[in-house]
Formats: sequence, structure tokens, C-alpha cells
Amino acid sequence: MGRFRTSSASELLVSLRRDADVPLHAQLEQELRQAIRVGRLPPGAVMPSTRALASQLGTSRGVVVEAYEQLVAEGYLTSRPGGTTRVAAVNAGPVPATTSLTDASAYRINFGYGRPDVTQFPRQTWLRSLRRVLNEAPSERLSYLDHRGAPELREALAAYLNRVRGTAANPERMVVCSGFAQGFALIARALKARGGTTIAMEDPGQTEARDTAAVFGLRTVPVPVDGSGILVEALARTRADAVLVTPAHQFPTGAVLSADRRAELVRWASEGDRLVIEDDYDAEYRYDREPIGSVQGLAPEHVIYAGTASKTLAPGLRLGWLLVPSHLVAGLAEIKEASDRGTSSFEQLAFADFLHRGEFDHHLRRMRPVYRVRRDFLLRALRRYVPELLPMGASAGLHVTAWLPPDVPEGELIERVAARGVGIYGLARYHAAPGPGTEGLVFGYGTVSEAEIDEGIQIVADELSGVREERRDPRTRAAAT
Amino acid sequence: MGRFRTSSASELLVSLRRDADVPLHAQLEQELRQAIRVGRLPPGAVMPSTRALASQLGTSRGVVVEAYEQLVAEGYLTSRPGGTTRVAAVNAGPVPATTSLTDASAYRINFGYGRPDVTQFPRQTWLRSLRRVLNEAPSERLSYLDHRGAPELREALAAYLNRVRGTAANPERMVVCSGFAQGFALIARALKARGGTTIAMEDPGQTEARDTAAVFGLRTVPVPVDGSGILVEALARTRADAVLVTPAHQFPTGAVLSADRRAELVRWASEGDRLVIEDDYDAEYRYDREPIGSVQGLAPEHVIYAGTASKTLAPGLRLGWLLVPSHLVAGLAEIKEASDRGTSSFEQLAFADFLHRGEFDHHLRRMRPVYRVRRDFLLRALRRYVPELLPMGASAGLHVTAWLPPDVPEGELIERVAARGVGIYGLARYHAAPGPGTEGLVFGYGTVSEAEIDEGIQIVADELSGVREERRDPRTRAAAT
Repeated sequence: MGRFRTSSASELLVSLRRDADVPLHAQLEQELRQAIRVGRLPPGAVMPSTRALASQLGTSRGVVVEAYEQLVAEGYLTSRPGGTTRVAAVNAGPVPATTSLTDASAYRINFGYGRPDVTQFPRQTWLRSLRRVLNEAPSERLSYLDHRGAPELREALAAYLNRVRGTAANPERMVVCSGFAQGFALIARALKARGGTTIAMEDPGQTEARDTAAVFGLRTVPVPVDGSGILVEALARTRADAVLVTPAHQFPTGAVLSADRRAELVRWASEGDRLVIEDDYDAEYRYDREPIGSVQGLAPEHVIYAGTASKTLAPGLRLGWLLVPSHLVAGLAEIKEASDRGTSSFEQLAFADFLHRGEFDHHLRRMRPVYRVRRDFLLRALRRYVPELLPMGASAGLHVTAWLPPDVPEGELIERVAARGVGIYGLARYHAAPGPGTEGLVFGYGTVSEAEIDEGIQIVADELSGVREERRDPRTRAAAT
Repeated sequence: MGRFRTSSASELLVSLRRDADVPLHAQLEQELRQAIRVGRLPPGAVMPSTRALASQLGTSRGVVVEAYEQLVAEGYLTSRPGGTTRVAAVNAGPVPATTSLTDASAYRINFGYGRPDVTQFPRQTWLRSLRRVLNEAPSERLSYLDHRGAPELREALAAYLNRVRGTAANPERMVVCSGFAQGFALIARALKARGGTTIAMEDPGQTEARDTAAVFGLRTVPVPVDGSGILVEALARTRADAVLVTPAHQFPTGAVLSADRRAELVRWASEGDRLVIEDDYDAEYRYDREPIGSVQGLAPEHVIYAGTASKTLAPGLRLGWLLVPSHLVAGLAEIKEASDRGTSSFEQLAFADFLHRGEFDHHLRRMRPVYRVRRDFLLRALRRYVPELLPMGASAGLHVTAWLPPDVPEGELIERVAARGVGIYGLARYHAAPGPGTEGLVFGYGTVSEAEIDEGIQIVADELSGVREERRDPRTRAAAT
């Protein structure tokens, strides 16, 4: 640890270490700053003269002079010409305790939706892509990029999406962003900038997008969804400038937008110079037949297609992409630039390499059967333990939903199940007007094992009966409380 | 390449490859999609029967049925029960040409400011940090994180900033973001959310921040800057709720905020429950004496401190951080989450490792003399070739500024120099009201070699004389045109 030397001048206690990397004057500065911050040296206190302090510390006077000068420049000390050096009024005060913001979701079993199994992230192949980028990428790629993103990634993504998602993608009309949440915020700003006022949302649908639209001064109107996706007739009766849809796998119901509705939707957009925003959040996972191609491919000048790597690779990557009608490319790229000066170029280039080498296809081929097995297991468990819950939207994605019978209140069931360490999530909150007929459950199966599924669904069944029993016999409830 | 088989039915020309990875029905789908998009199969055209097309292609009928069904589901074809299959009205049309958005700054010599020399990025040590992260990070770190960012990075940054920047940083009160531009957008939203209306800006100062404030519905007021930084007296006469300042190295003038002004600024904030936003964008580069500590250290409950790795490592990294008063932490973390669900966890963890192992200090120790030599070279060149330009703010950062004499118009000089392949940048645009007295030049020296500095400044000198000559003798100009 080295030799210490301490000295006290007035109430001053300072210790310096001779063998440290940090120069003596910098050590002294740190000690004094800290003493002033915590109030050990109170505002207005007279500091010892440089000569006196130096002699007490056994250092040269220059060390103390330098430290005092620095602290005067920083505002911790004040000094009048020829006069004494005093402690300035510093407002630091004690650091208040902060409430912890860490996620308290300490469920033993968690049917959280929208999260892939990150334990399966292909760490070694991703690292190989990163290594190639760091060894080979030209230096200018490490600086600010074209506002649309790295050309390598736009090329690789366009080829991939055209092949797998039936898009009409063109690298020139693509904007890379940091996931869907940001992508939608960019679109909302662009819509507002071109005079848009209203954006239609699927009901039920994503709640976060509604909040984002509001931040940028857009009104939102809900449009009902049925088993064939959004009701375009109802959409047409709104005065919306744009609509946010999830055609491949409606969130949260899981409906696939039917062929007729697709045609109507595209007609609605093109006839009124309106915009369809297609959130293709989990279309890569489809188990029983091949994925339905994107709506964007039908009308690339009227649809913004949004994709993300959060559901296929890892949320930690923060990579998303927008395919954009040509008249919106420059505007969206500029808004992206203004928002955060672009998405990490290292990750963009690594993902480009990963796509280019077929590693992404390989990863998806590996993961599809993993998730399918979990889905099948979940469906079996539901059938076995709670046959009255009828699963919807199970043919794709990473979640299954089911409406609740009218006599089982969603909130009560979720709470009881949570008390037993199992996280399940409600459907009501995805509705514009939660209430009767909107209650149900979302079961994500991206991160649960088969044993957890079995145990978790048994607990759901158990508590569902418990809710019913109490309702039939209120005394049970009173006794339990 | 494999065997090809082509077939034409009506105007239909389809080729399938037997040996490809892609199943035959999927190949057929792609071909038909493309044919419909480009109009080769026009809207309303009757498709051949599945039997006929199968026989022409030499495939089973099932392949064609599957392809037709898929394209009906996607909206490219329509089919009536028992009737014919037709091409739907698809709005794709030809893909319009897009104007290129790539940066056209093809200067031979570029005195662009605010960019570090990315050729010096420590690729191998960064890769080692990435490798450790990918080999060792627990899986949950690859999913969505605490909204403030990875705890490892907040710990490492707090220790670093307290040691090097004299902050009072606490990992609990830190929010990781994707660089300053985003950090400021988050702050603007938070300020608006707590009822703020007006934010004061240094004049001259960053123009982008003004635009960002406007996006979130905040007014901005300019406050003059002199050789000791922002005039706090003038600030106090505004009714601003917050002020954005660059105390360590005012942008663009390079002034250091004096001790008195620091004290006044902190008093202004604490007396009125106002907020100081301290943009510490390039304080790590200081050549002639040690850096002035942050204002945040004086009053951590009244100052948001913003830092970034863009100027020290590479803009491509997109890493920034905010030290936040305790009452704003939860709100800012929530806004960050809503904006983009967090900054890449891979990069956060890699930077944490990089800091923790002292690699960041090492990199800065290596770069400081590199930039100092360039700065000294630039100052010498200015003194030698254009002694009438008096450099300001040269003691820190990666740029030097100089006012122009009144008889030399900034725009004209910049244009003439640009025509000779040299990029220099003006000071007028950083002013709230560009006009007489606001014209000058910013010379960034982060990415220019010594030879380029010498040649570039000679050209500046040359064109400065040229401007003067033409003004004295308008005939020269007429003759030149």
C-alpha cells in the first residue's frame, strides 16, 4: 500500500501517497474536493497558507500552490489577490439515497413475451464477425456514417429481406435504427413534420407506440382487430394519416392479416396518400407453414416496413431497420441523424458480416425447432390443465394468447399466480378501452423450459379454480384475508 | 450453376433451379412476385391453371398450388372459389431512383472539427474487451437492461469520472445513452415533462441542440459568451429553466469558464431550482495544464453532466453518459427506455471492461501527444502564414478558432478555399444572429497530418489575400469571372 503521510491544518486531514501513479498535487486536489463536498471544510473556512500546508505535508510548496490554483479554477476555493484562500459555497451536500430502479421481476417462472432465449445467442459466431470487422473494416467506418446506416448492412439486409420476407427492399431506401421503438419514434416525427396529425393503431395493440405518438404531438385512434387482422373498413372511417399494423402476426392476438384485408389496406394507403407502418416484429418464427410475405412488397411506396434483431438474436444488440418509400428516405435519415447520430457502426458491420455469411439463417434454422417444441409443450399443457382457455395465434412468434371466461377477472388471476412466483400477463392493457370482453392472457414461451411450462400452467389452472371458488363462496375469501 | 428449366404460360416466364437450397414452391413464389411487381404480370391477368403450369414446369401440381396459396395469402393473387386465379392490383411500380445521401465532402484536406483520428482507434484492445464480454457476460446481460444502463459500465464510469473529471458521480444516478445528441434529447423531454418551457444556450454555441429543443417544444434563448465563458449575469436576466454550457472548453470559442462564473452559475441554478446541463465533450484533451474539473462536482443536485466516447474513442461507438440529480434519475431512465429500449449492451460491457483495465487511460495517454503535436503545428502554420488570425481556445480539445478581420467575408473565403480542395468551417453559423462580428473560422486538427496542415493553411493565407485583392480592385474579379 505504500507510506502514508498525514497532516492536520485547522480541521484539515489530508493523506498523500508517495508511490501512487497520481501526482501529489492531484491527490491533494481530490482530497480537498471531497472534504469540501461532504462539508468537512465548510463554506467560508480559511485555508492554511500554501507554505504552512506544504510544510505539514512534507511536500514542496509548488504542489500546494498547484492544487489551490486548480481548485480555485474549478470553483471549490476562492482567492483574493494578496489575501487568504477560502472555501467557496459548494452545493454538493450529501448524496441522497436513490430508490433502486432494477427490474424487480424476480419470478421463478416467467411467461414474459417478446424476449428470445438469450442463452442461445450465437456468441462465438458473433465474435468471429466482430473480429473480422475490427481487423478489416476501413477506418472511416468507425466515424460518423451515411445517415441511413452502413452500406454493407443495407445491402445484406435488402438481400435477406427480399429472399425471406417477400419485401421489395432496396439498400438506397433503407434506414438503419436501434430497434423498433426508435424506428417508430423516427416515423412519428417524420409524419408530424409532413403535416400528419393522426395515426391509427390496432386495438388491441402495442401500448408503447401510442405513448410515443403522443410525445411527438400525434393523436391516435384505435381500430378494432378480428381473427383476420385489422378491420380496414373501420380504418377507412377514421381520418388517420397513417396506420401501424402487425400483418404477419398481429400483436397481441396473433391473427394473420387476410388476403382481402391486405388488398384493402394497400388501396386505403395509395388512394389517399396515406402511410402503412408494417411492424414485422417476429415473422421469422413461423412453425406450421412458411411465413406470409410482407405487405411492403405489395406497395413499397406506401408502406414503411420495420424489422428488428431483438426477437431473433438479442435485445442487447439494438439493431433495427426501416424500408422506406422514396419520398421519405432523406427526411427519416435526417431525423435519425438528429436523434443520436446513427446506430453503432461496429454492430452494423458485424451484423452485415453475420448475414452475409449465412450465420443468421443458420441461427434461425437452429432456433425454430427449439421454440416450436416449447410452443407445442405450452399448447399441450393448456389443453391438459385449463382446456377452457382457447389458444390463439399459435402458428407463429414467441407467444400465445387466450381470452379469459367472463367470470374470471384478469387482474385477480394474475396477482394470485404472481404470488406463487409465476409471471403471466394480461390482454386488457393492450386495449384502447380496457373493460369487459378485453380480459385475457399472453403467454410468452421464448425463455421458459418445458418443466417450467408444465409447472406454471398447473399453477394458472389451480388459481383459476381458486378465483372461481372464492366468487362462489365469498366466505372463503373473507377467511383467507 | 445447375440445370435450368424454363416455361412460358401466357406471358409467363419462370425458371426454377433443381439444385438450389430454396424449395421449388418458394422459387416459384419469388419469380411470380417479381413478375407482378414489375408489371410483367399486369393487374387482372388470368393465371394459368395449377395443372397447366405444373406440367409446363415439369413439377408436381402441389408445388404450384402451394405457391399460388402463398401469393393469395400475401395479396399478390386473388382467387374465387371454383374460379380462376388472377393477378391482384399491386402498387409497387418501378422503384424510383433515389438521390444519393452519401457525404459529398471529398476535400483533399479537411479541417473538420469534433472528429477524433479513427485510424488510431485501439482495435486490438477493444476486440479483447469484446471477446471477454462475449465469453464471460451472463446471458441476462444480452437482454433488455436496467433502464439506466449496464451496472458494470456505470460503476466503471463513475470511478473514472471522479478520478479524472472531478465529478461527484454515483453509479445509481447515471444514465447511459448513445452519445450527446441523444442525451440532450432525453434531457429536453424530461425538462418539458416537468413543465419547463425555456432553455438558455451559449451564443455562439451548438446549433443542433437548438433544433432538438424545438422538436420537444422548448423555446431557446441565446446568452452571450466572452473569454471567460457564458455571461451568467445575462443568463440571470432570462427566464430560462435550464442552460446548456460547455465549461471546460466552450464550443466553439474554446473559452474556459472562470471560477467566478462557475460560482455564479451554480448559485443561479440552486436558487431557482434550475438546471445546468454541462456538456463535457472534449475535456480529456488538454495540453498545457491539467483539465479543469467539472461544474457537476460543485453541485451534483443542480447539474446534469454529459460525456461521450465519440471524441476520445470513435463516433462509431455511440456511447454517452449522463450524471443526473437524484430527482431526475427515474424520469430520464424511463425516457431513455421509451426512446430506444437502451444502448447496445455489448458495447456498454466492452467499454466497462476497457475502462476497468485501464485501457482508456492508456489510449488517452497515447493520443494526447499526437494531438498536441498537430495543434502546435497548426498554431505555427497560422503564425507563419496568416499572423493576423489570432487563435483562441487552443489549450484544449481538437479545434482552434479565430475571428476574421471585418474586410474578409467568411462565406467567400470558405468557398474559395473549398474550391482548392480544402475544407474549413465558419463561426457565423454558431451564432443566434449571424452577421457582422460573428464571422471567423474553426480549424479541427483531429484528422489532418502535419503536411496537410502546412499546405492547407498556406492555401487559406493565399485565398485570404485573394479576397482582399478583389475587393480592392473589382476588375480582378470581373476578369476572373
